[in-house]
Amino acid sequence: MIRIAVDCTGGDNGSAPIVDAILEFLTKNSDAQIIAFGKKEELTKLEGKAEIVDAPDIVPMEAGPLEAMRMKNSSIFKMSEYAKAGKVDAMVSAGSTGGFLSLSTLILKTIEGVRRAAFVAPFPTKIKGKKVVILDIGASNENSPEELAQFAIMGSLYSKYIFKVKDPKVYLLSNGTEEGKGSPVGKQAYKLLKENKEFKGNIEARNALSGEADVVVCDGFTGNIFLKSSEGMAKMMSGMIKGAFKRSIFSKIGYLFVRKGIKEMTETMDYKSTGGAMLLGINGVVVKAHGNSDQYSFYNALRVAYELADIDLVSKIKQEIK
Amino acid sequence: MIRIAVDCTGGDNGSAPIVDAILEFLTKNSDAQIIAFGKKEELTKLEGKAEIVDAPDIVPMEAGPLEAMRMKNSSIFKMSEYAKAGKVDAMVSAGSTGGFLSLSTLILKTIEGVRRAAFVAPFPTKIKGKKVVILDIGASNENSPEELAQFAIMGSLYSKYIFKVKDPKVYLLSNGTEEGKGSPVGKQAYKLLKENKEFKGNIEARNALSGEADVVVCDGFTGNIFLKSSEGMAKMMSGMIKGAFKRSIFSKIGYLFVRKGIKEMTETMDYKSTGGAMLLGINGVVVKAHGNSDQYSFYNALRVAYELADIDLVSKIKQEIK
Repeated sequence: MIRIAVDCTGGDNGSAPIVDAILEFLTKNSDAQIIAFGKKEELTKLEGKAEIVDAPDIVPMEAGPLEAMRMKNSSIFKMSEYAKAGKVDAMVSAGSTGGFLSLSTLILKTIEGVRRAAFVAPFPTKIKGKKVVILDIGASNENSPEELAQFAIMGSLYSKYIFKVKDPKVYLLSNGTEEGKGSPVGKQAYKLLKENKEFKGNIEARNALSGEADVVVCDGFTGNIFLKSSEGMAKMMSGMIKGAFKRSIFSKIGYLFVRKGIKEMTETMDYKSTGGAMLLGINGVVVKAHGNSDQYSFYNALRVAYELADIDLVSKIKQEIK
Repeated sequence: MIRIAVDCTGGDNGSAPIVDAILEFLTKNSDAQIIAFGKKEELTKLEGKAEIVDAPDIVPMEAGPLEAMRMKNSSIFKMSEYAKAGKVDAMVSAGSTGGFLSLSTLILKTIEGVRRAAFVAPFPTKIKGKKVVILDIGASNENSPEELAQFAIMGSLYSKYIFKVKDPKVYLLSNGTEEGKGSPVGKQAYKLLKENKEFKGNIEARNALSGEADVVVCDGFTGNIFLKSSEGMAKMMSGMIKGAFKRSIFSKIGYLFVRKGIKEMTETMDYKSTGGAMLLGINGVVVKAHGNSDQYSFYNALRVAYELADIDLVSKIKQEIK
């Protein structure tokens, strides 16, 4: 039995798609148990199917750690306490990223030996079906070389156990492929990473999604820039493609002929199927679903949380870091 | 009369497209004079039309500054000497970026008061025809807050004089919009930038190309990550779009209906029309054309070099920084 704490508040689309995702998930996973946190009156559909914990407060999107820590009636505070007490195996939220990451880190603490938790997301690559694990994408603003070396270990375990990659290829995100390229911290990290036999060297941002790498390591600021610039460019191009098809009646007809290919492309790019991002390195499974999650997207976040708990990635990290 | 030194070697496609671009440029700009550097025997088509300087050596793509400084028969070394002696008003090369930037900086020196030169490129935005100036995109691996504050001034002058933006809006690339977000250097830079009345605050990478900003400031490592991740994503999506159209005879027919819109989109995204990247803050006009420049792309690099020299951006920077 895998017990998942779910924050039913905080998403951009309210509790309805989250509640529906829970119901779908419970139907398909008979050995899953859901503990739903949120405004009791919005969770009536879950009665008899999930444990309901009233947690009416919502941590604002831009809340700092101190503000989040003071909101003891918030869903994410209560969930973290449940996780700390061992009452749940995983936590999922579509709410404030900062609040969720900082609260879960403060309450559950980092795994002994782990210097810093990393926020990690799988990205699509040019190779169909293949994902690359990139970390840290924004838990920190800066990281030490030693932290980057640990991110390589954690990212590799994720790749091995979640994506079943036998010998993950680990790269360091840099501004050139040769040793000696990189930010000051990156150059130091390179030296430490050379001890790791999965480490294959530097990779440039333009090749991070080529499918060559299974794991790409970077500091949290750089990872955030990578994530957001890729996202920005993808959105800009999607908008342009849509514009191209909307130009005239003829281009609309043209769309009918290519829609299958376009659909395949948008599926490859669809972040909704990846189930959000995970915080690695703390004593618990913490999955951050996208803020604007719909039922499908939140369902995938539940699936990832289930897998991480089932595989017990936390213990694997504990063993490896020791 | 604007005198432009042109490196006819070093591009990925050899000297032919560069020579053709020069001939086209001379036809269209009667007050331009070209001094062509390269292997004499490859430049016979230019005889009688441009001054030819024999410079048979090519600085390797990955050359460091010391190696580049030793190659005194290379085109970029000789061009930099011509520029230093005041024999040319601008320099254009499609060769080794590192070699070209480091040699021109070492020989021409930074403008008095300028702490560090910045490599700058105009990027397309969601707003048709509007470009955003982003700097530094890779002249440095790290920058001080004071350097970032100067990049804002240089970028704004570029936006004003080249893109004719009256009151450029300057932003700092960061991992969040609020003050207090950012890398340690970015946070310090924010404080200095607040003194600049064109400064509008932080911008996230996903909005850098939204058209909101005229100038985006960042350190060279971050700028390189931004540039290369945007490029990587754009290529990945272009490949997918092409794939979607090639699926079947029907999708190929579909393409006929949308090609006008797709053409407009690729034109917006086409880096070839921007004419490459410029090094700002040194005593000379230095334009780096893309390594794989074709005639059209190199022509645009010549055009940008001409404009920068004509407007005398170097003097404008001198005045503003003083």
